[in-house]
Amino acid sequence: MNITRAIHRLTSLLGEGITVSKPVLDAHGLSETYFPLTPPDAVVFPTSTEQVSQIVTICAEECCPVIGFGAGTSLEGQTQAVQGGITVDFSKMKAIRRVAQEDMVAVVEAGITREELNEELRATGLFFPVDPGANASLGGMASTRASGTTAVRYGTMRDNVIGLEVVLADGRIVQTGTEARKSAAGYDLTGLFVGAEGTLGLITALTLRLRGQPEAITAAICAFPSVDNAVACVTDAIQMDLSMARIEIVDTATVAVFNSVAGATMPETPHILLEFHGTESSVKEMAQVFGEIAADHGGMGFDWASRPEERAALWRMRHHAYWSILQSRPGATALVTDVCVPISRLAEAVSAAQDDIAASGLFGPILGHVGDGNFHAILMFDPAKPDELAAAKAASERMVSRALDMGGTATGEHGIGIGKLHYMEREHGAGWSLMGDIKHALDPQGIMNPGKLIAQKEAVTAVL
Amino acid sequence: MNITRAIHRLTSLLGEGITVSKPVLDAHGLSETYFPLTPPDAVVFPTSTEQVSQIVTICAEECCPVIGFGAGTSLEGQTQAVQGGITVDFSKMKAIRRVAQEDMVAVVEAGITREELNEELRATGLFFPVDPGANASLGGMASTRASGTTAVRYGTMRDNVIGLEVVLADGRIVQTGTEARKSAAGYDLTGLFVGAEGTLGLITALTLRLRGQPEAITAAICAFPSVDNAVACVTDAIQMDLSMARIEIVDTATVAVFNSVAGATMPETPHILLEFHGTESSVKEMAQVFGEIAADHGGMGFDWASRPEERAALWRMRHHAYWSILQSRPGATALVTDVCVPISRLAEAVSAAQDDIAASGLFGPILGHVGDGNFHAILMFDPAKPDELAAAKAASERMVSRALDMGGTATGEHGIGIGKLHYMEREHGAGWSLMGDIKHALDPQGIMNPGKLIAQKEAVTAVL
Repeated sequence: MNITRAIHRLTSLLGEGITVSKPVLDAHGLSETYFPLTPPDAVVFPTSTEQVSQIVTICAEECCPVIGFGAGTSLEGQTQAVQGGITVDFSKMKAIRRVAQEDMVAVVEAGITREELNEELRATGLFFPVDPGANASLGGMASTRASGTTAVRYGTMRDNVIGLEVVLADGRIVQTGTEARKSAAGYDLTGLFVGAEGTLGLITALTLRLRGQPEAITAAICAFPSVDNAVACVTDAIQMDLSMARIEIVDTATVAVFNSVAGATMPETPHILLEFHGTESSVKEMAQVFGEIAADHGGMGFDWASRPEERAALWRMRHHAYWSILQSRPGATALVTDVCVPISRLAEAVSAAQDDIAASGLFGPILGHVGDGNFHAILMFDPAKPDELAAAKAASERMVSRALDMGGTATGEHGIGIGKLHYMEREHGAGWSLMGDIKHALDPQGIMNPGKLIAQKEAVTAVL
Repeated sequence: MNITRAIHRLTSLLGEGITVSKPVLDAHGLSETYFPLTPPDAVVFPTSTEQVSQIVTICAEECCPVIGFGAGTSLEGQTQAVQGGITVDFSKMKAIRRVAQEDMVAVVEAGITREELNEELRATGLFFPVDPGANASLGGMASTRASGTTAVRYGTMRDNVIGLEVVLADGRIVQTGTEARKSAAGYDLTGLFVGAEGTLGLITALTLRLRGQPEAITAAICAFPSVDNAVACVTDAIQMDLSMARIEIVDTATVAVFNSVAGATMPETPHILLEFHGTESSVKEMAQVFGEIAADHGGMGFDWASRPEERAALWRMRHHAYWSILQSRPGATALVTDVCVPISRLAEAVSAAQDDIAASGLFGPILGHVGDGNFHAILMFDPAKPDELAAAKAASERMVSRALDMGGTATGEHGIGIGKLHYMEREHGAGWSLMGDIKHALDPQGIMNPGKLIAQKEAVTAVL
């Protein structure tokens, strides 16, 4: 491994497109959550796929680690340079190469963010539906298999990326998928790179499935006496095939933060936030049916927001919940859990998680994508107090362990990174070694985002 | 490679669960289409995953080919033993291990067929939506990434298989996926085995996503003056986000067969067959909107079939179209094309395909899944006349070549097998060699369904 020589060669190649300035390195070694600063040795800012290919070719020749970087919003340390090396920042690759309106497909470069793309699509009547809350880059969203509030209706990145342009670990450029809606032509390479967290190659462009902006949208909020009631209501609605576009749960602690930080005036009890997309009459019908189901489960104060500005305010509050919670405890930081369980076990999982949090002595509001069985506890702790981090980790461990016992997963949408690496063997068994075989076949030197997702425990332990 | 020794050892293991009887071998070496008889050296009938694991372990030790076999309905020679070896017939593994009604999930063994599963599910109010027409096994449907008439609404096998149990090339048993609705935990192994056509391992069980039986179903049929009009109508309906559960096109030649063989009395012009699933009022609304769109595009004689027996008759006719077409030309056999193109190019692709067929001098009705951009030409030829097969192949080549030029794929749902192997390099470029790397990593001896999907051209050429 010769990182110094790689930097030297990359400087010749890129000129001003590479930096070793400490503030920039540090900005790329931060995380949104509790991981310690882990900067790379250099950051490059390619402007084209060909340049990415040249960068990776040099790194391969020098056996130098390569880490992809989108908007830096990942939550499991996916972009941290745990073995040093070169961070490839895609912020100068934001082009929309093509929008095929009739086919409802867009081809975009990896660095464009979700909000930037939807802003550009506004006039077409189409939109890209995956919404993780954060204004993440599309390349990053694909790499972590992101989803978020709309997955219950539109699916995750797995379902909405139909093709990729990827620079492989030896610098080759490969195109996966086609622009047809489906294909049975061989292994699903697109699906393999989605969720691979940059460990098999760097995504440089994506072919995305777009959707028609719905004719009508209605949002609503409803209070419930307990999480159990709220979940039972949603389970009934799903079984009735009620097509909800978003269906979110927030617990009492989260509502208290909305009231104290975000200016809400909600009764301090669990709430469901939801949205329907469809025709004028279908959203009305769905809303009415949902209202009846909610009433059966003790739902109170069912409140509809059909006006765009009311809806925007509601979802802004939900999307900003993480930052509002951080703001509610100045000086504290957060460990964010991300388990996903079969829906039949969701009420039990949330209730047990609340007990874990109470036992930990920490403040830990819970919110989640109740239609998917995926929820997050925002475990707040003082970074100056190691015992609080230990308590947060212990509570998180219990939640994950329970989720796996229930047939669920350690991560519904945040991915593995370095934070969840130690659950891979338990969750996947022989499957994890299979992943290692694939990694070795595609990246024999192990230069692509080393220390993430695949076993390389020594290097990672030093960071955790 | 020692097939004889493998058979000897398998006979000790399985007793009556293995046969070398010629009629059975021949039945497993047939294809539904034009490939010549290619029987294996033995057929085994395992009754459990453990037995499959023991079988594959022996075959691995003897370096003996292993071919999975479900219902034998594949169309690209996926189950043909082009290098001899052992065919693993899953017809004795049909158990439904579990139905989790609240989670809308079923765990089934690979040998159960689509119709058998839905018959068992009837009382639960749930169903498995993927419907390729043929009564295929679920393991086979997953292996070829099957889809069919309902993919426009419910997706393909890629979208409806959430976990797998797979016996790997060394006999190890691996579980992929969880029972949660989504996961971001590492590479999508489930997605990798779906569509791998048994070249990476044998699927022994599947965790399937089920759907609620819709409250109301309406089917309809509508005549159009041309394929162009019909496709333009469907494109408009998709852009309006009209949620069609099935949307099929049949050309004039297919309608003529329906009239002559299936007892229909349809005007001999292209038709759209469609179905809506939803609530009583939503299917009515969608039907009305579709009717208006159809009228704008010259649709005539819009005819609704809300009664179950009328709907069943309509879809029976569509599902039996392939056999009706075969029946309309006694003694002839068929080469079935399967291109899938971006929807914006569909009318052009169908029209050009009709020209290709006219130029070939063959009878070749066209039918397809117009909502996906996927269509089939049933190219009929006399198996005793090599020049007719050559003409069919040449017409098919032109259709595939055009589809690839349009950004489409050589196969929307039938897979690669041996019939489409020669398109893989053109469709995938460097991606095909990547598939070869993955194959080599997971099956270093190349014993899993050799000659299919991945380059091994010598062995295959002999058969084609």
